[in-house]
Amino acid sequence: MVPYPKTTYILKLWQKENTVISEKIERFTVGRDVELDLHLAEFDVLGNLAHAIMLESIGLLTADELADLQTELIAIYKKTQTSEFIIEEGVEDVHSQVELLLTRKLGDTGKKIHSGRSRNDQVLVDLKLYVRDRLTQVVQATEKLFNVLQSRAEQHKNDLLPGYTHLQIAMPSSFGLWFGAYAEGLIDDVVQLNAAYRLANRNPLGSGAGYGSSFPLNRTMTTELLGFEGLHYNVVYAQMSRGRTEQAALTALASLAATVSRLAMDVCLYNSQNFGFIVLPDAFTTGSSIMPHKKNPDVAELLRAKTNRLKALPMEVTLVLSNLPSGYHRDMQLLKEILMPAFDEMLDCLDVAAFMLENMEVKTNLLDESRYDLLFSVERVNELVMQGVPFRDAYRQVGKEIGEGNYSGDELRPSRDLKHTHEGSIGNLNLEEIYQRMDNELARFEFDKVEKAFQNLLKA
Amino acid sequence: MVPYPKTTYILKLWQKENTVISEKIERFTVGRDVELDLHLAEFDVLGNLAHAIMLESIGLLTADELADLQTELIAIYKKTQTSEFIIEEGVEDVHSQVELLLTRKLGDTGKKIHSGRSRNDQVLVDLKLYVRDRLTQVVQATEKLFNVLQSRAEQHKNDLLPGYTHLQIAMPSSFGLWFGAYAEGLIDDVVQLNAAYRLANRNPLGSGAGYGSSFPLNRTMTTELLGFEGLHYNVVYAQMSRGRTEQAALTALASLAATVSRLAMDVCLYNSQNFGFIVLPDAFTTGSSIMPHKKNPDVAELLRAKTNRLKALPMEVTLVLSNLPSGYHRDMQLLKEILMPAFDEMLDCLDVAAFMLENMEVKTNLLDESRYDLLFSVERVNELVMQGVPFRDAYRQVGKEIGEGNYSGDELRPSRDLKHTHEGSIGNLNLEEIYQRMDNELARFEFDKVEKAFQNLLKA
Amino acid sequence: MVPYPKTTYILKLWQKENTVISEKIERFTVGRDVELDLHLAEFDVLGNLAHAIMLESIGLLTADELADLQTELIAIYKKTQTSEFIIEEGVEDVHSQVELLLTRKLGDTGKKIHSGRSRNDQVLVDLKLYVRDRLTQVVQATEKLFNVLQSRAEQHKNDLLPGYTHLQIAMPSSFGLWFGAYAEGLIDDVVQLNAAYRLANRNPLGSGAGYGSSFPLNRTMTTELLGFEGLHYNVVYAQMSRGRTEQAALTALASLAATVSRLAMDVCLYNSQNFGFIVLPDAFTTGSSIMPHKKNPDVAELLRAKTNRLKALPMEVTLVLSNLPSGYHRDMQLLKEILMPAFDEMLDCLDVAAFMLENMEVKTNLLDESRYDLLFSVERVNELVMQGVPFRDAYRQVGKEIGEGNYSGDELRPSRDLKHTHEGSIGNLNLEEIYQRMDNELARFEFDKVEKAFQNLLKA
Amino acid sequence: MVPYPKTTYILKLWQKENTVISEKIERFTVGRDVELDLHLAEFDVLGNLAHAIMLESIGLLTADELADLQTELIAIYKKTQTSEFIIEEGVEDVHSQVELLLTRKLGDTGKKIHSGRSRNDQVLVDLKLYVRDRLTQVVQATEKLFNVLQSRAEQHKNDLLPGYTHLQIAMPSSFGLWFGAYAEGLIDDVVQLNAAYRLANRNPLGSGAGYGSSFPLNRTMTTELLGFEGLHYNVVYAQMSRGRTEQAALTALASLAATVSRLAMDVCLYNSQNFGFIVLPDAFTTGSSIMPHKKNPDVAELLRAKTNRLKALPMEVTLVLSNLPSGYHRDMQLLKEILMPAFDEMLDCLDVAAFMLENMEVKTNLLDESRYDLLFSVERVNELVMQGVPFRDAYRQVGKEIGEGNYSGDELRPSRDLKHTHEGSIGNLNLEEIYQRMDNELARFEFDKVEKAFQNLLKA
Repeated sequence: MVPYPKTTYILKLWQKENTVISEKIERFTVGRDVELDLHLAEFDVLGNLAHAIMLESIGLLTADELADLQTELIAIYKKTQTSEFIIEEGVEDVHSQVELLLTRKLGDTGKKIHSGRSRNDQVLVDLKLYVRDRLTQVVQATEKLFNVLQSRAEQHKNDLLPGYTHLQIAMPSSFGLWFGAYAEGLIDDVVQLNAAYRLANRNPLGSGAGYGSSFPLNRTMTTELLGFEGLHYNVVYAQMSRGRTEQAALTALASLAATVSRLAMDVCLYNSQNFGFIVLPDAFTTGSSIMPHKKNPDVAELLRAKTNRLKALPMEVTLVLSNLPSGYHRDMQLLKEILMPAFDEMLDCLDVAAFMLENMEVKTNLLDESRYDLLFSVERVNELVMQGVPFRDAYRQVGKEIGEGNYSGDELRPSRDLKHTHEGSIGNLNLEEIYQRMDNELARFEFDKVEKAFQNLLKA
Repeated sequence: MVPYPKTTYILKLWQKENTVISEKIERFTVGRDVELDLHLAEFDVLGNLAHAIMLESIGLLTADELADLQTELIAIYKKTQTSEFIIEEGVEDVHSQVELLLTRKLGDTGKKIHSGRSRNDQVLVDLKLYVRDRLTQVVQATEKLFNVLQSRAEQHKNDLLPGYTHLQIAMPSSFGLWFGAYAEGLIDDVVQLNAAYRLANRNPLGSGAGYGSSFPLNRTMTTELLGFEGLHYNVVYAQMSRGRTEQAALTALASLAATVSRLAMDVCLYNSQNFGFIVLPDAFTTGSSIMPHKKNPDVAELLRAKTNRLKALPMEVTLVLSNLPSGYHRDMQLLKEILMPAFDEMLDCLDVAAFMLENMEVKTNLLDESRYDLLFSVERVNELVMQGVPFRDAYRQVGKEIGEGNYSGDELRPSRDLKHTHEGSIGNLNLEEIYQRMDNELARFEFDKVEKAFQNLLKA
Repeated sequence: MVPYPKTTYILKLWQKENTVISEKIERFTVGRDVELDLHLAEFDVLGNLAHAIMLESIGLLTADELADLQTELIAIYKKTQTSEFIIEEGVEDVHSQVELLLTRKLGDTGKKIHSGRSRNDQVLVDLKLYVRDRLTQVVQATEKLFNVLQSRAEQHKNDLLPGYTHLQIAMPSSFGLWFGAYAEGLIDDVVQLNAAYRLANRNPLGSGAGYGSSFPLNRTMTTELLGFEGLHYNVVYAQMSRGRTEQAALTALASLAATVSRLAMDVCLYNSQNFGFIVLPDAFTTGSSIMPHKKNPDVAELLRAKTNRLKALPMEVTLVLSNLPSGYHRDMQLLKEILMPAFDEMLDCLDVAAFMLENMEVKTNLLDESRYDLLFSVERVNELVMQGVPFRDAYRQVGKEIGEGNYSGDELRPSRDLKHTHEGSIGNLNLEEIYQRMDNELARFEFDKVEKAFQNLLKA
Repeated sequence: MVPYPKTTYILKLWQKENTVISEKIERFTVGRDVELDLHLAEFDVLGNLAHAIMLESIGLLTADELADLQTELIAIYKKTQTSEFIIEEGVEDVHSQVELLLTRKLGDTGKKIHSGRSRNDQVLVDLKLYVRDRLTQVVQATEKLFNVLQSRAEQHKNDLLPGYTHLQIAMPSSFGLWFGAYAEGLIDDVVQLNAAYRLANRNPLGSGAGYGSSFPLNRTMTTELLGFEGLHYNVVYAQMSRGRTEQAALTALASLAATVSRLAMDVCLYNSQNFGFIVLPDAFTTGSSIMPHKKNPDVAELLRAKTNRLKALPMEVTLVLSNLPSGYHRDMQLLKEILMPAFDEMLDCLDVAAFMLENMEVKTNLLDESRYDLLFSVERVNELVMQGVPFRDAYRQVGKEIGEGNYSGDELRPSRDLKHTHEGSIGNLNLEEIYQRMDNELARFEFDKVEKAFQNLLKA
């Protein structure tokens, strides 16, 4: 580990003049906060803007002071969009940095902005806005992957595939069904992402350190300014939502990750020579240092592994939070380390999964191999049923034929017999209905409302 | 372990006449299925009713056959409501038992009902209906607990409590805030329960073993008959929803459990002599076998422990499902053992939590103790701010007073100074708004629609 | 849920005469304790015997009182071995039941046995003895499975199998290697079981409620009487070992479960028609309700699922214990519900795994299929190396041959080329060395010492 | 995310000349390997040294070639000790970098060193050596923390502390007992670390890609050269140990983390004003941005949170490995990201915990407060027992006195009455025995043997 910089000279917001903080303790407690807080910077500025407008409305800032703050804050916001914003050495976190910049520029006006606020509700609102924003990106990337799956389902609706239960060959399936299944699965992930989004979409600002303020704050105003669906009314609950917001987001990511993970497992299996259903282009495979023939599907394996790791994160958060009494604890600060990289990893996986699926080749005429003949045994049973034999008797009759070696797959090849017509079957994939359902779920998010609120805050 | 009953003589649905199943293997594979399947019986019958009506509509049953089946199925349904329904020795599962009863009574007509269906989609639809039903109960019990918390918040809105951050005394709080916080938290749990409910509320019937059927099934019809929000279109996805439905339900329970668990931790702490904020009635406490003075809050500790256990269940499901390729695997059958007791435990915990909260005594005038004087330091800072001192300067001034021992809590006692008026603060708990928000979330569930659908099915 | 029996009339050990316990609270707090405590009964009696002998040695019992207690306790012990021992209605737990039986029979002498003891250290010592005993059974069942695997490895050392990396065919393997790998893996599981065993094998008796006793107890004496390796010296730590003992045991089971789980996954895959390496006898498979051709490997799937569930249990314990301050909490009582069924499940899985492996058929001559030709590419590279070509150049040459379609697997068939001779390779399985290593690890457990100690206690 | 460097021009070990790898796929699959592999560099060189010596002994290298390789490898080893060793851009991993350096310098001799080896067993042996080394450091840091706890236990053996059960005041405890309890707990952690160490301490080298080699390797020789306890005989099992080694190490860390976590929870609680048992120096606390009086124990909270996170890692590994069939999968490569930072975090936490404990002040005379009077109720019971009253009757009598308000704690103040003399009690902490037990456990590790083996390899 690199040696830690010498004691710093900018006082913490809370530091008394005569106190010295142990360097070892400082390093241990600050941890990765400074690095991770950079991801919150833009949202911290937006929260400051809303808070300042509200403070002016209740007489704690003058109109001029507000105007000055808005000008400065918008300038800082722009820096957050271009990597110019930094947290200076010795400054504890993003909130302190913003307050420092304002105070440097505006003197006493800058010192006033923390009225009616604590860093507790400040970081809370930052995190709510951050999570809402990142979930928006995840939903959009999910939609993109969904579209790829739907296209490939349409493209391969006539390419048959053995269907398995218990990893035993069972009945005919198709690539159309297989791609389409994952597409539809993503819609349920969007349902769960929506629940997480709604938990993130409530305003905690004004809850202070979890016990409110004696200032006559107007929390409804900041709720509207920041485009929230509503507010966390109770200030103690607003504080309790810390951790829970992160947990809900990571739980939704875990659900989405599980969908991608299973898809990746299928790809690994179908790409094995023993299945041989799909082919990854050479540019997607890696070799071995000793076996000159290998073309390994590392990309699918790492998709599987990375998404499997993501599934562990809700439990990691649970372990940090479990059995903590109510009220803020520093433990919660650590959740950023779990949360923030998870969004990057999820987005990366969604992107690579789409890229892989777009480039994957699909083998055709798979069911021509005789080892798949038994896939059609149910078709034969159903044929008897259509002739009037009760289902259970027809089942026994075909079972007997197979047992005695009289079942002839040859007469039952797919070209003739597959007339699946019902909703969601091989012959009727319902892709349009699935597109429609995705649209309905996406419409539950009010992304536009957020965008408009932010535009208003930033035009001053 | 009790000795296992001798080999059974009723053939399995799938058993060929000449096969013998190892008794040890039979015991191992059947496991607790027979016992747990009883919880699915009523839903299996409802699924059968819908399936039969649909089969008649596509010509696979005659009107008379349907009428006979309806009469029998309704008779069986009634037995499921009175514990008369049993799974006979040697019968593998609830589906086989129902088919057996129908076949005994109706001969060939009974054998026809499995047309266009597999036990895979049959248990899937049973589980969907079961989960939907149990989640309905959980939502209702959550509402009951919510009401208790809201009442107690109203009752104690003027009883102050020390507020903590970092387990250090921080600022004044109140029992009103504390009870109200947990009430509001339950609303977010209902949001997550709703996502789980929606995943359960889709029709998998007609997906067969995950690859559909060559019969011209009308899956839209069974969707309506069973009161589902919609259907799982893609038959492969319908099968993939196995495990996922359970996972989503258990994840929502875990969220709710986390709320109850934290509440229980607070109760344990506040009931400790070192806090002494609340008193549990003697009838709620237990003693020690050696310490004659003990009154232990076992009920709160077990609420904590039981809800903490519930938080582990989504991971248990994840472990069973991870890295299974698509298609049904017998592994999924085991999920019933995780899922079903969880609902019982959750409902029990919600009931006992409400009972405990209703009977808990709350201490008054807690802040009169001098050790809580520092709770008012922010009030003093804010007073200076109102006099025009910039916040950060006022903060430093009060900090200095405290450091030098000149801070006098005495002048700042709560009776005079607490004028918190903003939304969700001590003086303005927003209980009405919180009631309203809960109502809005509850209205998203369409419990009535389900009830009506079932009434229709059962009136024949 | 069945209605709960009416209020009970036998007072709890700690109950004051004028207290009434809420029936709902009683049901909730007692939970499954009475049922689970039966598993502790024999160990409770053994602990009582050791405690009584020690009390006599320090003058808190007379020699006659001790003799009476020994007679009674040995009589009770015998009942625990024949299911005659029950916990009477209204009696809280096994400790109270034993004390009740002694007091009924011996009056004041029975009342004296709880001197210098709390139920906290009593249940602790019961659990230590229970866990030690159950781990002994698990180790023995593991050895049995190990022996089956070793036998089958020997039997099939010449039956080749394709070896995979990345699920891609890689190099030749054999059934000898495959069975032998799992055998050797079980040795490492025994190493981890030993760590858990050693944590269970320390005496907590005499630690009271975690703060010791003012009686001049001789804890070293009870340590020897009960055959422990040593004692938990510090009484606060003795209490802290609660939960931790269970955790260590479940962690070792999870490790063992992971070995069995992976084996089961291999079986499911190798049994799939696309691999076709093994065959399960018909008596080990189940069928489908609609597909008459199915022979599903449910036994392997459930082995996989059950062992995967076991892997979740350490986390469940962790969740119950996390962030609990030191000192006993009632939460810990709940751990019995997690711990006890886990041993049953593990032993059942070990037994069924051995049974399945003994009866599984293995296909021969698998590598004759041309799709496995590339398995021998490394052999070809090594041949060139033996002729003096540097490895990396030989690798590139063969890679080029394969790429250009000039690689001819035909010349490289296994019969001629597989001369693997080094330790642990196809041609040299080291089965003897592996047996030896298992023996060495088993010798670290002192099972005999425990047995002798118990015989001494019971011969009185 | 920063833009990714352009396509690289150094060929991979396995790359054919005409293949192009997608840049996106390359970035996704390489991930953090290059960065993390630096931690393996020194061990990779040691493994190379042992492998080269063995290759010479079986005639695959000449004596001169070996001498050249040794000279170069020792030169590279020195660079790994001074941060001079780097992985060049475009080089895939540490193994390729070392081979590249050797080939640059020695031409064909460098190309020969990969004979009889795959990157699979090469990274396996690197990881074994890495884990063994890191566990050694953890054991040493644990011993240091143990010594601090033991010293403070000795120092405060007479400072009494209220003992709690159920968070209710129970019986007298002491700081001596409290510190000593955690010291003894660390010994059990060392037992679990030893199991993990032994799993890491077995040689996988020579197992190739999991299927061995047709070269007549001498694996026993490399086992001795690298100071291993023994070898993983079976080559398939050697490969299976991948993941499992990491899992065992992380499981042992989780156990140790749980000890530190509980200690940190106690510190947070005892430092709360409502307990007030300990004081952290100002240099160890942080303040609030709004409450000028706060001195928050962030260091203890973060110790708790960081160790709680560590407890999640075994599950994260489990999720990556679950249901993967045998044979290497790229998924396993990802485990480095979980494993490596965990060692850093654990060592940091152990160091900071020791530092905090060394500097923590302990309050004296705590039991003088009247609210702790009831702590002595058992003493009173025992007094009656010593006078001949049967325990259960004495218990009831004192219980009655307390219930009726006649219990006078005043007569029972600690100075007079605490005569706990048995092993591990307040008056007899057994610190010497506990030191002795730690020494015995430490002696089970053969750290010296490893050191000597490495010195031999490096002196050439």
